[in-house]
Amino acid sequence: MQALDALESNVRSYSRSFPAVFSRARGSTMLTEDGRNVVDFLSGAGALNYGHNNHRIKAAIADYLASDAVVHGLDMATPAKLDFMELFNSVILARRNLEYCFQFTGPTGANAIEAAIKLARKVTGRQNIISFTNGYHGMSLGAMAASGNRAYRTASGVALSGVTFMPYDGYLGPDVDTADYLQKVLADESSGVDCPAAILVETVQGEGGINVAGREWLQAVQAVAKSAGALFIVDDVQMGCGRTGNFFSFEFADLSPDLVVLSKSLSGYGLPLSMVLIKKEFDAWQPGEHTGTFRGNNLALVAAMAAIDLYWRDETFGKEVLRLGEVMRHRLETIAVKYGNSFAVRGRGMAFGFDCQTPETAAATARGAFERGLMVERCGPVDQVVKFLPALTIDCETLDHGLEIFEQALNQALKRTRSS
Amino acid sequence: MQALDALESNVRSYSRSFPAVFSRARGSTMLTEDGRNVVDFLSGAGALNYGHNNHRIKAAIADYLASDAVVHGLDMATPAKLDFMELFNSVILARRNLEYCFQFTGPTGANAIEAAIKLARKVTGRQNIISFTNGYHGMSLGAMAASGNRAYRTASGVALSGVTFMPYDGYLGPDVDTADYLQKVLADESSGVDCPAAILVETVQGEGGINVAGREWLQAVQAVAKSAGALFIVDDVQMGCGRTGNFFSFEFADLSPDLVVLSKSLSGYGLPLSMVLIKKEFDAWQPGEHTGTFRGNNLALVAAMAAIDLYWRDETFGKEVLRLGEVMRHRLETIAVKYGNSFAVRGRGMAFGFDCQTPETAAATARGAFERGLMVERCGPVDQVVKFLPALTIDCETLDHGLEIFEQALNQALKRTRSS
Amino acid sequence: MQALDALESNVRSYSRSFPAVFSRARGSTMLTEDGRNVVDFLSGAGALNYGHNNHRIKAAIADYLASDAVVHGLDMATPAKLDFMELFNSVILARRNLEYCFQFTGPTGANAIEAAIKLARKVTGRQNIISFTNGYHGMSLGAMAASGNRAYRTASGVALSGVTFMPYDGYLGPDVDTADYLQKVLADESSGVDCPAAILVETVQGEGGINVAGREWLQAVQAVAKSAGALFIVDDVQMGCGRTGNFFSFEFADLSPDLVVLSKSLSGYGLPLSMVLIKKEFDAWQPGEHTGTFRGNNLALVAAMAAIDLYWRDETFGKEVLRLGEVMRHRLETIAVKYGNSFAVRGRGMAFGFDCQTPETAAATARGAFERGLMVERCGPVDQVVKFLPALTIDCETLDHGLEIFEQALNQALKRTRSS
Amino acid sequence: MQALDALESNVRSYSRSFPAVFSRARGSTMLTEDGRNVVDFLSGAGALNYGHNNHRIKAAIADYLASDAVVHGLDMATPAKLDFMELFNSVILARRNLEYCFQFTGPTGANAIEAAIKLARKVTGRQNIISFTNGYHGMSLGAMAASGNRAYRTASGVALSGVTFMPYDGYLGPDVDTADYLQKVLADESSGVDCPAAILVETVQGEGGINVAGREWLQAVQAVAKSAGALFIVDDVQMGCGRTGNFFSFEFADLSPDLVVLSKSLSGYGLPLSMVLIKKEFDAWQPGEHTGTFRGNNLALVAAMAAIDLYWRDETFGKEVLRLGEVMRHRLETIAVKYGNSFAVRGRGMAFGFDCQTPETAAATARGAFERGLMVERCGPVDQVVKFLPALTIDCETLDHGLEIFEQALNQALKRTRSS
Repeated sequence: MQALDALESNVRSYSRSFPAVFSRARGSTMLTEDGRNVVDFLSGAGALNYGHNNHRIKAAIADYLASDAVVHGLDMATPAKLDFMELFNSVILARRNLEYCFQFTGPTGANAIEAAIKLARKVTGRQNIISFTNGYHGMSLGAMAASGNRAYRTASGVALSGVTFMPYDGYLGPDVDTADYLQKVLADESSGVDCPAAILVETVQGEGGINVAGREWLQAVQAVAKSAGALFIVDDVQMGCGRTGNFFSFEFADLSPDLVVLSKSLSGYGLPLSMVLIKKEFDAWQPGEHTGTFRGNNLALVAAMAAIDLYWRDETFGKEVLRLGEVMRHRLETIAVKYGNSFAVRGRGMAFGFDCQTPETAAATARGAFERGLMVERCGPVDQVVKFLPALTIDCETLDHGLEIFEQALNQALKRTRSS
Repeated sequence: MQALDALESNVRSYSRSFPAVFSRARGSTMLTEDGRNVVDFLSGAGALNYGHNNHRIKAAIADYLASDAVVHGLDMATPAKLDFMELFNSVILARRNLEYCFQFTGPTGANAIEAAIKLARKVTGRQNIISFTNGYHGMSLGAMAASGNRAYRTASGVALSGVTFMPYDGYLGPDVDTADYLQKVLADESSGVDCPAAILVETVQGEGGINVAGREWLQAVQAVAKSAGALFIVDDVQMGCGRTGNFFSFEFADLSPDLVVLSKSLSGYGLPLSMVLIKKEFDAWQPGEHTGTFRGNNLALVAAMAAIDLYWRDETFGKEVLRLGEVMRHRLETIAVKYGNSFAVRGRGMAFGFDCQTPETAAATARGAFERGLMVERCGPVDQVVKFLPALTIDCETLDHGLEIFEQALNQALKRTRSS
Repeated sequence: MQALDALESNVRSYSRSFPAVFSRARGSTMLTEDGRNVVDFLSGAGALNYGHNNHRIKAAIADYLASDAVVHGLDMATPAKLDFMELFNSVILARRNLEYCFQFTGPTGANAIEAAIKLARKVTGRQNIISFTNGYHGMSLGAMAASGNRAYRTASGVALSGVTFMPYDGYLGPDVDTADYLQKVLADESSGVDCPAAILVETVQGEGGINVAGREWLQAVQAVAKSAGALFIVDDVQMGCGRTGNFFSFEFADLSPDLVVLSKSLSGYGLPLSMVLIKKEFDAWQPGEHTGTFRGNNLALVAAMAAIDLYWRDETFGKEVLRLGEVMRHRLETIAVKYGNSFAVRGRGMAFGFDCQTPETAAATARGAFERGLMVERCGPVDQVVKFLPALTIDCETLDHGLEIFEQALNQALKRTRSS
Repeated sequence: MQALDALESNVRSYSRSFPAVFSRARGSTMLTEDGRNVVDFLSGAGALNYGHNNHRIKAAIADYLASDAVVHGLDMATPAKLDFMELFNSVILARRNLEYCFQFTGPTGANAIEAAIKLARKVTGRQNIISFTNGYHGMSLGAMAASGNRAYRTASGVALSGVTFMPYDGYLGPDVDTADYLQKVLADESSGVDCPAAILVETVQGEGGINVAGREWLQAVQAVAKSAGALFIVDDVQMGCGRTGNFFSFEFADLSPDLVVLSKSLSGYGLPLSMVLIKKEFDAWQPGEHTGTFRGNNLALVAAMAAIDLYWRDETFGKEVLRLGEVMRHRLETIAVKYGNSFAVRGRGMAFGFDCQTPETAAATARGAFERGLMVERCGPVDQVVKFLPALTIDCETLDHGLEIFEQALNQALKRTRSS
């Protein structure tokens, strides 16, 4: 770790939250160099929905690597790419009656968001993007402009523009329908809110604190987009690929987004891969208008194909995710009740937030959890929420064990807080 | 290919220039599904300096994969990451008397450029970035603002700001020292050019048409940056990692950039990896101020380590690059003279541009070359330049063969043009 | 009028709404070249609170002109300027326990708004300005960015940035306190709303449709500004100088704005004059940081002095304004009830809006009114509101006559509408 | 003056350079309250080309005022406005074979520049404006973005965008044709300079240091604008209305600008008035797209009419301006030679700059001059240039007297500097 301090920029962060050298990992368990096992409820910030080093996916990667098939291909045609698109199209899209074409972007969620925003601006000839309070979409300048976090925004060093933030579902309390406000503002010819190119939304806000949008609200927002002549974009970077129990997080609300952004768990193995799904009528790109060197990460495409083949050919996996999610919800709500009435549990599928109300409690809990062998991250405007993103493939025992550690750590944190 | 048309967005580009399905690749040769061998002078847009599927690097990747070591680790500490930093530090930096700390960014060159620009703005409290005519730095909004290409800029759909473009070395002809102009404009209290946070430069402009900056000019620009209180950033995404005969493209001019941006061939195998090297006095980041999911692509780190270990422990490899480069230059200049006096050959190391003066000639040549079994890309403001980026590991025979095909294709293209 | 069409740009507007050549004017009556008398409820868009060519003010102007005192003085000291500041300070400010210093800006409201915004940004080191739905603050780029009207914004031809629009008092219906929302958004560390340099508000929105903010709401917004470290700016360009019954429109709510912007009726004679009142602790200007040629319009200063001397030495005038305002309100509400239950009457002091709900009715009414000898303007997001800004010095008879014409015109407009 | 310090914002500037209370003024002489006569070579920053309180113009103003004709008329038709347009059209435009329509803007030069830029953006659908090093166009956000002064720009508190600064005539020395550079950059598809909506130029840069553009350069820039599809805008705010010997400053170069911006001396009496002259084919305004309360300053229109009537019906006045200008040039050049070889004299017509090379010398000279009874301003990037803008109507004796004082003050300043 001293080498790290000496060599790596001060910008490093997870290595501070989880101060250990991680030598091996498998499924939901990471092994530190000094021999500790850690249960992983972070899952690579949502990039490891199928667990670390999933062996069945690994086999596909290893075979491909061994074959000297094209690994780096820019956006040239390769069998791996063609096969991936065909499989994704038949297994994921067609069964859901969705029709999209594929854009492979630079292999970060941020780059895919940049591409989606750019395309929406091109299609509509407008510039404004509607984003939502507590939304997060990435670190590059265009994506950051649509992200709410003030500390990150300030770090950009320039004023971020081209985005209007509107209140997310529930932001003004249960009595105010914020979709109505959005509708009013866009219809009002002197609201000061410029006509939008797109409305960009997460169905569950991950970084923002696991805030869950309701079905009706999402449908209303989609309708507002349509009536305003704006594209409706779902950022499914963190909540897609099964995290909420369906492959796409918006299926439960019967949405039909114009653009869908995927990344993180798309490759299924933590390999960098991102893409934008585009309704064909909005595929207004000229050739090469959004390029990038690593768009053709064929190793990741092969992994992605394996993941789809393994988990999404029928509904079994999604149902198990929902079942495990209910286990989590029940346990977390029980804990919330047990330790005080101010805690809130929010989530959908297997994405949960335990809102400790104060950053101090959340920090002490997460720290204590890691000391006891559980890796959990924090989120929310002031990092007051403990965030649970276990691998969707986790077994019940490990899940229970992790939740048990969380409860102990919370208990300990509260003792310290309340005694001080 | 029909599947491609049906499924992939219209944005696809290389698959149009090189209409084939590429099934296998090794070194400087790619094999199409229908059995053709293609000599590759494109090298994955500069990401494959050590050739396709370099077997010695592959072995390291395969071993790592098999071991269940951490593949996706965000920015947590792993042995792979620590080992990479130590090796890079001792073999690359220390021997060149360079001192930098490492920032791993999202694994695209654009993301690393965004981070470098952001850091420069943070360090200086200024917003303006000086970039140069015909510069190219990436596709996300912050990086695109610093890139000259008008078609790409327009596609952003918003006005790009925060960057002032100054004439690159030679832009105003041989008699005007454009570094003097830069100096004057920055010293002038009413020039309209705001005080810069950074001067961002490529030592050889790749996308811009293989424009080569001279040693004195680069030194002068570095001095201007210092006197203006701006950070001096070298974008070595395409020209670094040995392309010009040294590991860094700026070594020949004895520069000491404040920030260096690397990507493309860094991993040595086409796996997505990017980083910013930061002089310690400018490492002003707060923890987590520039994050991203795929910053810890350990597979790529392992590959990068192998590449350094194989090629950069002594000066043998770099000298061979320079030797092959001279072969290329001689052959290309001979061709230029033979086919007409308007052609220009520009380049350094093993990066060359053959300026056909017109996009038509360049297009016809590149097309003809591919039909004959050579993959070359075009670059420059109107794609009038044929760009040669063969793998640095290419053997003489294949290099000759590729150049021979180029000459035939040029000859054929000129015949058609001149007869029409 | 043909000469007008031939010579003046298509941008001309009032000459279309009121197609006549106006040769003379006095008080609340204008005389057309062809001999018609028109009652003026427009008052030079609020710049003629004391009527046209007010003879007592005119005498001061004529005397000054005759004396060869300095007419154009940039911001050099003149007796006129010193006397104006001292009179304004003693008669207007000191009696209200207000302490401000004076900044004379370019003689347009927009320029004064630009100065106020600039100063707020300088004082706070922040960039964002909070403005409100349906707000209007002027046409230059900085002022327009804070103005809601979409048609005007679009005409700027660039994306307007640096301003966040929040819902004005009542915008989300009577049950939602929009000041609470503002408070929440500014306190929320990931709302996406950047920390503001200033909150800029009109106490009654003139162009926006005569929307009236309540006392409590204004106080809450002022408190939010303070707690957010932002300057609280009242744009009193249209509603100041007595329009609402006090000299400043914010007196009724006991506000203490950090900056106050005045223009329009400040000179009392329609002569161009603008100023920003600045709390001394926020007078962070360096000498000359906001300049402009016509800041020293001494003729206007002399007129302004006369107006203050005539009308504001005691409370008589303000009380009469309130009395006449009640007459107007009563009459307009009676008309609203008489002609249908969908009309709304809004206003304060002697600023009223008659919301016809549809632009067609409002347009037909205004047109009919002019034909009958009454000049009234329209306002609101789609110009659906007839706007009443009679001179504060109007006599009862002329006021009644004007209101009578309005009723006739409305009646006629409704007949046509309802029969079609 | 203490009252001034107590009451007026710290932003005041001329009252610091010229610390006196000015009670009366006539022609080229101002009288201070304590009885001193000051020769005025500042002329209200160029707004008093016909001198202070020109009696023949005053008569027209006084008559109009007395008649109760409309003083404040927004943009309604008045005889004064119609007469002004017709007189200007026949006496100024038609005789020069120019065809323009008139847009009256808010009565500041900045507002007229904002309107011109806005119109150019509307006409072309582009956003970028080409401005020049050391250019100055005003203080509101849109105009300031096109102005070079770094201190003013910084005071804006936001990054200024939408403008590209190119080197003015002579900026890169006598051997570089900066119009060629402009041409190259606009033709280059990857220069980073976005296609411009307009090229905005002063034929002599006033604030920038009295930099004089040559006839050929101006013609070349106009041609570049045409070939680039950009509007060619001459900012004649300070150099128009006879300052250079013709009514328009661009006549000497036979230019035909698409838009011309006038203000300052347009009214002839220091009354606020501004306008944009628009070639009819570019009059793309929709009614009301650029509005403002004080566009109809009829008192100023009447004065402007008188000025044109008095001075521009034939060529006598212009010739006298040129003759006096030659007197000035000869005298200033003689002084420059006498006191040292580093001084530079620049100018055209009756606008001259005496470049003292250092701000200290220029400041000491201007200060000394005022003590001796001469008012001169400074300009240039660091205020190193003494600026001579005497009234065009000045008599030879007063002109000589002023120049004599300048020489004495310079002499004294140099003695002090050289002895210290």
